[in-house]
Amino acid sequence: MKVCIVGSGNWGSAIAKIIGHNCKRLDVFENEVTMYVYEEVINGEKLTDIINRTHENVKYLPGHKLPENVKAVPDVVEAGKDADILVFVVPHQFIKKLCESLLGKIKPTAVGLSLIKGFDRAEGGGIDLISHIITRHLKIPCHVLMGANLAGEVAEEKFCETTIGCKDKKLSSILRDLIQTDYFRVVVVDDTETVEVCGALKNIVACGAGFIDGLGLGDNTKSAVIRLGLMEMISFAKEFYSDSKQSTFFESCGVADLITTCYGGRNRKVSEAFVRTGKSIAELENEMLNGQKLQGPYTAFEVNYMLKSKNLEDKYPLFTAIHKICTGELKPGELINCIRNHPEHM
Amino acid sequence: MKVCIVGSGNWGSAIAKIIGHNCKRLDVFENEVTMYVYEEVINGEKLTDIINRTHENVKYLPGHKLPENVKAVPDVVEAGKDADILVFVVPHQFIKKLCESLLGKIKPTAVGLSLIKGFDRAEGGGIDLISHIITRHLKIPCHVLMGANLAGEVAEEKFCETTIGCKDKKLSSILRDLIQTDYFRVVVVDDTETVEVCGALKNIVACGAGFIDGLGLGDNTKSAVIRLGLMEMISFAKEFYSDSKQSTFFESCGVADLITTCYGGRNRKVSEAFVRTGKSIAELENEMLNGQKLQGPYTAFEVNYMLKSKNLEDKYPLFTAIHKICTGELKPGELINCIRNHPEHM
Repeated sequence: MKVCIVGSGNWGSAIAKIIGHNCKRLDVFENEVTMYVYEEVINGEKLTDIINRTHENVKYLPGHKLPENVKAVPDVVEAGKDADILVFVVPHQFIKKLCESLLGKIKPTAVGLSLIKGFDRAEGGGIDLISHIITRHLKIPCHVLMGANLAGEVAEEKFCETTIGCKDKKLSSILRDLIQTDYFRVVVVDDTETVEVCGALKNIVACGAGFIDGLGLGDNTKSAVIRLGLMEMISFAKEFYSDSKQSTFFESCGVADLITTCYGGRNRKVSEAFVRTGKSIAELENEMLNGQKLQGPYTAFEVNYMLKSKNLEDKYPLFTAIHKICTGELKPGELINCIRNHPEHM
Repeated sequence: MKVCIVGSGNWGSAIAKIIGHNCKRLDVFENEVTMYVYEEVINGEKLTDIINRTHENVKYLPGHKLPENVKAVPDVVEAGKDADILVFVVPHQFIKKLCESLLGKIKPTAVGLSLIKGFDRAEGGGIDLISHIITRHLKIPCHVLMGANLAGEVAEEKFCETTIGCKDKKLSSILRDLIQTDYFRVVVVDDTETVEVCGALKNIVACGAGFIDGLGLGDNTKSAVIRLGLMEMISFAKEFYSDSKQSTFFESCGVADLITTCYGGRNRKVSEAFVRTGKSIAELENEMLNGQKLQGPYTAFEVNYMLKSKNLEDKYPLFTAIHKICTGELKPGELINCIRNHPEHM
């Protein structure tokens, strides 16, 4: 099978290191792995040329060598045309356009594996999963990979775990072989949508954890908010994605990624500052994130749209309160009063 | 129903505040709550007299008033003789002797509620749950309450959650009413043994988290170790306590208490120092804990006894490695090599 990596940022380059290594090692995969690189010029030389000459993505993953069988290609159609497996790892706002470019120009039997965190806004409002977008726009099945996987630590070969969501039994062992190394450990589950939605919802909970830190409420309260957030994640997945399984939340994409995000992570950090400084989220995005948007408040907004449309806000008092705090409708100090009579305590 | 609290330390006094409040408020409970206090003399006055005069446990929970209907009693038989509910909250090493004192001197219809963390060593080796000891020695059913409940924060009325394990449907709503306040939120499950064993096993995982911190391995690795620890906790509970349910691990006694323990907590802290300093656990207990014993290594030892007896060490590579690191059989740097091929990744 031939593999193409669509994307070459920090995370894309870290996974290229792993995929290149496994494609060289395992007979089931073709040796050469193409990597679509959005062309840039660095000190007068094209980034693709630098990567193919030095085997290092000097812009997005400096200091780490890529395997020599990973070939940078500046044209996505050229990169993907012979691929049996397309690994998508680009910022989510580029995915639709990439799919348009690729439509009709890939193998009809190709499959996708999305490593893209985040989601798109559905028409009207609400969450549109990236794997669904790929399937709709590119007419191929799309599986997902998510977990507590900070790219820098993966590139440094520090031990971690990840979760692949794939409903196709035969393919799932191939995807595992493509991804697993002795430091990057894979669990495959068939609950694809849950794996993907975990990665979005965790950012809402991380805002709640940040508010608690900002309010100075201590360890008991923080772990209660994280747990109630997890319960609302489980409930939300059951409500909006049929067949969601509770056990998936025990995987790396669930509880592990949630913990890392609620203790480290920018959503927690900015939310803490939101309480301590009294500034708006938009002001803090400018000050702390160079104007980049924070995922948590945006996700809370779209999730609230979905909950409201089904008249379910009361069943999700934590998600609802976090959304209202982010928009300024509610004071952060009111968060606890909103969850004292949580459905979990009935 | 009449309630007696057996114990008056930090946690006992914090829960006395809650129980006293609820017994005053709710008709189903007798107003007066007795609290067994091990008699001490403080500045020339008996502790029980001080508590009954000032309504403050000046030694173990200074700065917090107990409700006036909580009556300190220095004789455990006197305190417990009319009780319908005996709430046990003493250091675990005293429980057998207290049960001996109480045997035959309580109502035959009385029930126990154990808040005691830890366990006793079974004859020969292994874990003997405190609720089982109470049932065996006092011939009464015993339910449990566990969660992410640092006593100081509970006394300050900071919002948190707890889990009650009780198989008796009718009693479970009574126990909930006895314990629940607007800041101390209760979920009752019928999976009593799992609730209790979580509180012991989490300390092993916290040692693992501390080793990772000491080794400087980063967020991905730490959350992977916490998750694998949780999976071994689930598997252990299923193996040794029939009817254990996976969903119980989503309660406060499970994931919430585990998180708090792996980020705060003395087991994590001492284990980090163990790696950084190269000193033995015993030395660090002397230096960092005034000679008190650390729960994690002791629990790892007894759990290892149970696993060995069933030839199951290989199914629990994390628990096994943590045990061997604590005893010096294995270097901390070997921890990751022991879990690379975890059964979860097969």
